[in-house]
Amino acid sequence: LKMSRRNLLLLSNSTIHGSGYLEWAAQEIKDFLTSKNVKTVLFVPYALRDMDNYTETARKKFTSWGYELSSIHQASDPVVAVEGAEAIFIGGGNSFQLLKALYDNKLIQPIRKRVLQDGMPYIGSSAGSNVATVSINTTNDMPIVYPPSFSALNLLPFNINPHYIDADPNSKHMGETREERIRQYHEIPGTPPVLGLREGGLVKVEDNSAKILGKHQARIFFPGQQPVEHPLGTDVSFLLK
Amino acid sequence: LKMSRRNLLLLSNSTIHGSGYLEWAAQEIKDFLTSKNVKTVLFVPYALRDMDNYTETARKKFTSWGYELSSIHQASDPVVAVEGAEAIFIGGGNSFQLLKALYDNKLIQPIRKRVLQDGMPYIGSSAGSNVATVSINTTNDMPIVYPPSFSALNLLPFNINPHYIDADPNSKHMGETREERIRQYHEIPGTPPVLGLREGGLVKVEDNSAKILGKHQARIFFPGQQPVEHPLGTDVSFLLK
Ligand SMILES: [Ca+2]
Ligand SMILES: [Ca+2]
Repeated sequence: LKMSRRNLLLLSNSTIHGSGYLEWAAQEIKDFLTSKNVKTVLFVPYALRDMDNYTETARKKFTSWGYELSSIHQASDPVVAVEGAEAIFIGGGNSFQLLKALYDNKLIQPIRKRVLQDGMPYIGSSAGSNVATVSINTTNDMPIVYPPSFSALNLLPFNINPHYIDADPNSKHMGETREERIRQYHEIPGTPPVLGLREGGLVKVEDNSAKILGKHQARIFFPGQQPVEHPLGTDVSFLLK
Repeated sequence: LKMSRRNLLLLSNSTIHGSGYLEWAAQEIKDFLTSKNVKTVLFVPYALRDMDNYTETARKKFTSWGYELSSIHQASDPVVAVEGAEAIFIGGGNSFQLLKALYDNKLIQPIRKRVLQDGMPYIGSSAGSNVATVSINTTNDMPIVYPPSFSALNLLPFNINPHYIDADPNSKHMGETREERIRQYHEIPGTPPVLGLREGGLVKVEDNSAKILGKHQARIFFPGQQPVEHPLGTDVSFLLK
């Protein structure tokens, strides 16, 4: 599938400190869905185990914005649900659990087809943004389950590190910093660029154009190069090449 | 293999803030090796990519303590190196990379056999402690490569979370705390207990006895129970049952 048609809104995370579920991104989400004439969103709650509860949280929010929301875990056939969806929202949680469930339910190709051929709008948050990229190799999550591959939906030719966090110069903790982890990933030949999205950051992709939006600038890592900061509003379409 | 014979010294990490490589655990390592009459240690540097450099760091330290050190990555046959080793030290780095290399070099069964049948002393640090347990499901590392399984050497019937860190009550970061991650792991049926080792913490296992040593108390998690703190010197042999 060629990657020339797509509508993606990829959030670093769902909730920022001191604000309600998805509130920080409310305007962006509403603008995105309204501009595509979406009335109903298909929710994918696989990243958490209590999917009924998770769906209620998401439904309350989308309903308050005037959209209907149905959950894929309550559909009789998940593939048919994707085939008939107007738009999809994949929520955060654990990336390994989420990706394994996408494989177990045979949803990788159906979602790719809808996004890349039909231009179905895709919203992802945290783990839901990780699975939109080449692979989950740059997730921060604990590998609590074993998916059949780390390769993901591959809707974009780069990876995302959500919840990106700068090193704390006063920390005495010796675990690798986030930047060191991404550098270790890039020591492996053939790895794609990584977009570090701080909490409250997002990237919006329309066809072959990508832009940094939200509340914080983003940090972009290419193998063998110094990372570069990209302010709000920057066109980062070079990531799509 | 029955797990009744074993000699394991499992460190949370190699270097604590303000101190040299392995210095915080120097006395424990020397006591452990001397009590088993070890003269030469086989080093496993697979968790990092620059293995020559890593081996020099480890060699300098063990030589200064009066032991010889050879590295498995410089052996003509890694399996033969394990079969002839007096003791093994598996260093830290990336758990996914390390476990994949153990599988790629067909070392899982040879190491198990030497540790559980012959009682070969095993020292692990960070990723090297993760791979000694049931699985790497509770590593903190980024999944930069895909191993053929998350199941590990299974020298013990529990898992370890190295670099365990308590939640910072002042943090505004919304990523899961370490305790939340372990709780999410334990929502999965059939998961083993998890020993949280803070930096500068270790567990020493001799046959069917296990003890918390080092500089910090440990936190132990059983599925469906509140985690419990275990002070230095505590007998935690119940983890081996
Ligand atoms: Ca997560
Ligand atoms: Ca590590």
